[in-house]
Amino acid sequence: MNLPLKLGLLGAGRIGQVHAAAITADVRDAKITRVVDVYEASAEALGTQYGISYSTDPQDIFGDDEIDAVLICSSTDTHAAFMIRAAEAGKHIFCEKPVDHDLGRIDEALAAVEKAGVKCMIGFNRRFDHNFMKVREMINAGRVGDLHVLQITSRDPAPPPISYIKVSGGLFMDMMIHDFDMARFLFGEVEEVYALGGAMVDPAIGEAGDVDTAIVTLTFKNGAMGTINNSRQAVYGYDQRVEVFGSKGMVDVKNDYPNTHTFYGADGVVSEKPLYFFLERYMDAYKNEMKAFVDCVVNDTTEPATVHDGRESVVLAMAALKSLQEKRPVKISEIASYPD
Amino acid sequence: MNLPLKLGLLGAGRIGQVHAAAITADVRDAKITRVVDVYEASAEALGTQYGISYSTDPQDIFGDDEIDAVLICSSTDTHAAFMIRAAEAGKHIFCEKPVDHDLGRIDEALAAVEKAGVKCMIGFNRRFDHNFMKVREMINAGRVGDLHVLQITSRDPAPPPISYIKVSGGLFMDMMIHDFDMARFLFGEVEEVYALGGAMVDPAIGEAGDVDTAIVTLTFKNGAMGTINNSRQAVYGYDQRVEVFGSKGMVDVKNDYPNTHTFYGADGVVSEKPLYFFLERYMDAYKNEMKAFVDCVVNDTTEPATVHDGRESVVLAMAALKSLQEKRPVKISEIASYPD
Amino acid sequence: MNLPLKLGLLGAGRIGQVHAAAITADVRDAKITRVVDVYEASAEALGTQYGISYSTDPQDIFGDDEIDAVLICSSTDTHAAFMIRAAEAGKHIFCEKPVDHDLGRIDEALAAVEKAGVKCMIGFNRRFDHNFMKVREMINAGRVGDLHVLQITSRDPAPPPISYIKVSGGLFMDMMIHDFDMARFLFGEVEEVYALGGAMVDPAIGEAGDVDTAIVTLTFKNGAMGTINNSRQAVYGYDQRVEVFGSKGMVDVKNDYPNTHTFYGADGVVSEKPLYFFLERYMDAYKNEMKAFVDCVVNDTTEPATVHDGRESVVLAMAALKSLQEKRPVKISEIASYPD
Amino acid sequence: MNLPLKLGLLGAGRIGQVHAAAITADVRDAKITRVVDVYEASAEALGTQYGISYSTDPQDIFGDDEIDAVLICSSTDTHAAFMIRAAEAGKHIFCEKPVDHDLGRIDEALAAVEKAGVKCMIGFNRRFDHNFMKVREMINAGRVGDLHVLQITSRDPAPPPISYIKVSGGLFMDMMIHDFDMARFLFGEVEEVYALGGAMVDPAIGEAGDVDTAIVTLTFKNGAMGTINNSRQAVYGYDQRVEVFGSKGMVDVKNDYPNTHTFYGADGVVSEKPLYFFLERYMDAYKNEMKAFVDCVVNDTTEPATVHDGRESVVLAMAALKSLQEKRPVKISEIASYPD
Repeated sequence: MNLPLKLGLLGAGRIGQVHAAAITADVRDAKITRVVDVYEASAEALGTQYGISYSTDPQDIFGDDEIDAVLICSSTDTHAAFMIRAAEAGKHIFCEKPVDHDLGRIDEALAAVEKAGVKCMIGFNRRFDHNFMKVREMINAGRVGDLHVLQITSRDPAPPPISYIKVSGGLFMDMMIHDFDMARFLFGEVEEVYALGGAMVDPAIGEAGDVDTAIVTLTFKNGAMGTINNSRQAVYGYDQRVEVFGSKGMVDVKNDYPNTHTFYGADGVVSEKPLYFFLERYMDAYKNEMKAFVDCVVNDTTEPATVHDGRESVVLAMAALKSLQEKRPVKISEIASYPD
Repeated sequence: MNLPLKLGLLGAGRIGQVHAAAITADVRDAKITRVVDVYEASAEALGTQYGISYSTDPQDIFGDDEIDAVLICSSTDTHAAFMIRAAEAGKHIFCEKPVDHDLGRIDEALAAVEKAGVKCMIGFNRRFDHNFMKVREMINAGRVGDLHVLQITSRDPAPPPISYIKVSGGLFMDMMIHDFDMARFLFGEVEEVYALGGAMVDPAIGEAGDVDTAIVTLTFKNGAMGTINNSRQAVYGYDQRVEVFGSKGMVDVKNDYPNTHTFYGADGVVSEKPLYFFLERYMDAYKNEMKAFVDCVVNDTTEPATVHDGRESVVLAMAALKSLQEKRPVKISEIASYPD
Repeated sequence: MNLPLKLGLLGAGRIGQVHAAAITADVRDAKITRVVDVYEASAEALGTQYGISYSTDPQDIFGDDEIDAVLICSSTDTHAAFMIRAAEAGKHIFCEKPVDHDLGRIDEALAAVEKAGVKCMIGFNRRFDHNFMKVREMINAGRVGDLHVLQITSRDPAPPPISYIKVSGGLFMDMMIHDFDMARFLFGEVEEVYALGGAMVDPAIGEAGDVDTAIVTLTFKNGAMGTINNSRQAVYGYDQRVEVFGSKGMVDVKNDYPNTHTFYGADGVVSEKPLYFFLERYMDAYKNEMKAFVDCVVNDTTEPATVHDGRESVVLAMAALKSLQEKRPVKISEIASYPD
Repeated sequence: MNLPLKLGLLGAGRIGQVHAAAITADVRDAKITRVVDVYEASAEALGTQYGISYSTDPQDIFGDDEIDAVLICSSTDTHAAFMIRAAEAGKHIFCEKPVDHDLGRIDEALAAVEKAGVKCMIGFNRRFDHNFMKVREMINAGRVGDLHVLQITSRDPAPPPISYIKVSGGLFMDMMIHDFDMARFLFGEVEEVYALGGAMVDPAIGEAGDVDTAIVTLTFKNGAMGTINNSRQAVYGYDQRVEVFGSKGMVDVKNDYPNTHTFYGADGVVSEKPLYFFLERYMDAYKNEMKAFVDCVVNDTTEPATVHDGRESVVLAMAALKSLQEKRPVKISEIASYPD
């Protein structure tokens, strides 16, 4: 393989722009050579900014023999089909989460990837965050001892538009999916979930058939327990914390802040709000993620987040939704075609 | 009523000693004039220390016309009977939690108290803690806005002896009962609970029929949700935290520490562990609690923790245990004779 | 000596009240049996509150054979004379700081104390604070290694009235004297000081011949260096911090707060201001101080703050004032009659 | 001017590498086209890494008409001469601090720059740090009110080799010069300094004629006061903090850390040490600095750190050294040829 690795970018929206910036600024062994987006204006804007070819036809990427790998940053409904086309074209794949909302299509994509023998990494960016990596390091080093309790707090600063909510797959599939992956990243496989949820932030979200606030309890196969709590709106900003409790102690990670200042005034002691949202908070994680993808392709190592990981988080989201609907704990094995 | 209020102390064990010290040092309008304990040595030790009469017969207190009120600090199985005797003797009552493990007996005691028209306050000391009082103040002042999520973390530094576990009523009745009361203190009435638990700290606790680690989710009547997580053993000390999340923001309270020092050395940045256990952490709360009891008697105001509050926390403990046993969410209204 | 130790209290003002409360509530082996104040109303108020004799004539204390020890809490100009009278009457002495503004009178008092062989402890309450004791413990345990730099921040929430400023002896003698003692408590003897100061808070303080803001650098005999910074007005409350830097690391202690709550809202992250002033911050230290005084009398051990310590802090205040006036570093040995 | 701006890099050592990385990764409007270093191996390594021309002769940069601006990252003794050659060649200049150890040569360089009318920015990177920028923002917004006291703590994790100490110009010129600039950045011009110092970390530093630990007090022209404390060795890492106290409150900034984790274990509560040294701590500041340089050239705006700023910090270092040697406060106006 000739370096730098040549990448085709599918999707010039927000997350595509994030990855393009990261690749350009921080990943020495790769460069994006073409961008495709169904919206020509989006493709043109990104292409012009980085001085690369752009168009609206995905075949311009899949059919380009110079391109080694693709970054699938388009809408969720295109993920599985693009993964299959990329696999068939022999190109390595980085695909944003979720892979798909349908397990059957995920399995088709997985089969295509396995048949082609290409790398396929799923975009669980939080696995590359300095804080969460440290928690995992502490767990793996045995510092926490036997794992007893995991608590994940994950809240967005503001809800997306109702139009997005309607096509998002719902809070569990769109938002908590990151936390399900984090739970597996830290504590391993889940056996059962129980979900509580409601539309507390905005009744319109409830009318759209979704919840905006949820608590899910997790029972892990290793016997540990956990909770995830999500809200679509924390007025103080993006709230991303994890606490792990075990036989030898507890490790927690708190939010990141734009600076360390504190003001001590007559009215109280005031400091910064957390970094506003995922672009601010996870910018370094996105860079690390792109480096990790390029590394696993270049060095032929295992992807740090596999299609299997992507599938499991979808299964957990489905189980949580079923639990919420049926008002009972749901075993992960109840979800159709879950491999045990 | 002549001041100082004269108190009879039933039970000279650890918590009796705590209250005796608080009354003596910090409560101007009351004094303990007699202590009774089934163990004569215990009664003598406390009586001698404070220069007051002591004996082993509760009637020495119930039959003493000079005594205005009693502090019931004896073992749980004596609480209801002592409450009834005190009520019949026209004495005001402070009783440690839990009132009883049996709802029928609680109701008998409640009836006796109501018939006698005496004050009866239950010892939920955490309601008088500087941190939790502040959380409630913030909620009541509307600072948090609509209540969405409550998270209570409550862990002991070390488990009690197995012999105690066996008679304790179990983790929900003995330990989480404080957190159930805190949940009601902050968020109001509970509608449903779901419990996870296991013997992770010590298998012997499991063999004794109890769990040592538990997570309970709560659905409140006002639509809010919450979690309580308990462990019998946090190796870093007593972990007592609360986080309240709502439409206008979040308020949390952290642990208390013996001092504010931090050491920055070649091996890391190290600071104190939290105050070790309830005696260290809640000493001021116990003082405030005794003042509040004396105040409500002297000024004829409502008790800040009523027999009803004591009863409700027992109901919640029963519901949590039922949930754990039946592996399903349990409505509070399922618990026999729960008044709705 | 018969216990409890019987104490005569000279001065029923604020600090006298603090000690009376501490003795009554927390010191088992001593009780105050008489209070004297030049203002009869003050003496009466305190006497009535604690049920003890009161009057306006100090001789009622010095001439009372039942009294074992005196607490000198009257105005600074009476300290030395009362110390001498107490010593001559064979009574042990606790005296508030400063001993006097005049070294000659301090030396007279010291001679009287030594001649009588009574205990005499000076009221440097901060030596008994949980935070500063921890710093000293860390230093003495060798955790910080060789001592390099001491930084003391000490600011009051609001300046006293100008009328008080005029008789206070000035900022160095009235306020920084506590910090000079803390510097000696932690780092040992001082060799040289250099002072900067100004009337930044209130020009009237400058017109009264004093400064309200000052920085003093210290050179210690052990080669270490330090700074003290004082302000008469920190609008956020009482600011009492220490930082010690050495060859093996740094230890710092921060302020104490009324509770641990933090509120995360749309306008920022807000927490409590420090405890407002010395009564709130050092209440436990005052209790510890009184216990320590009674202990050193009862057990005939060395006072934890001696007349020598009281004298040294006055010498340092004089040196700092001289430095400010002469705009140059001043050796402590320059101060008349300083014993080297 | 054609974009991107073409830069010549003088000096391929550590700081040259930092700037090269920043320009390449984060500064869209500039690129380095040639690197020169007296050590051919250094020039080659950097040139090869970035795919640019390299050589050992500075004239290859000064004589290259394509180059718009130079980055002077060579040893201090070359700064002034390179500034003059760059100015004469009509090239804009970014020069690392200090400009020179000799005021006469600084003035010659300044004259050349002014005559040529080129931009010349001095490398005070801390002016671009997220924390210190926030402090300045708070001051300028009036949040702190009138400025009373500045406290700067600045400690390196480990001392440089003695060979470097000998040519460094000493602690005041080499290390505290950053803090002198920070003091002026935040509080304005200085009127007088007083310095304490010693060789506490390593006697060999004292034998080399330098100190490794120092405290300097500052009197500002606006009446405020301040302290700077430096150490060549903080075993816990790079310690970079500022505290500003004024009539309306205090603002402080603390260290940055690699992550937010805390571990609560049986032996204590442990968290990360600060980011190790300037490359870790100030990496973002270096990027901001390079952007600011390119911006001021491209947009023809005032440099955010001028040659005058560079000169003043040298004057303050000289005054501090003089104070240390003469053991007295030194007015800045005493330093020869200081323009008032």
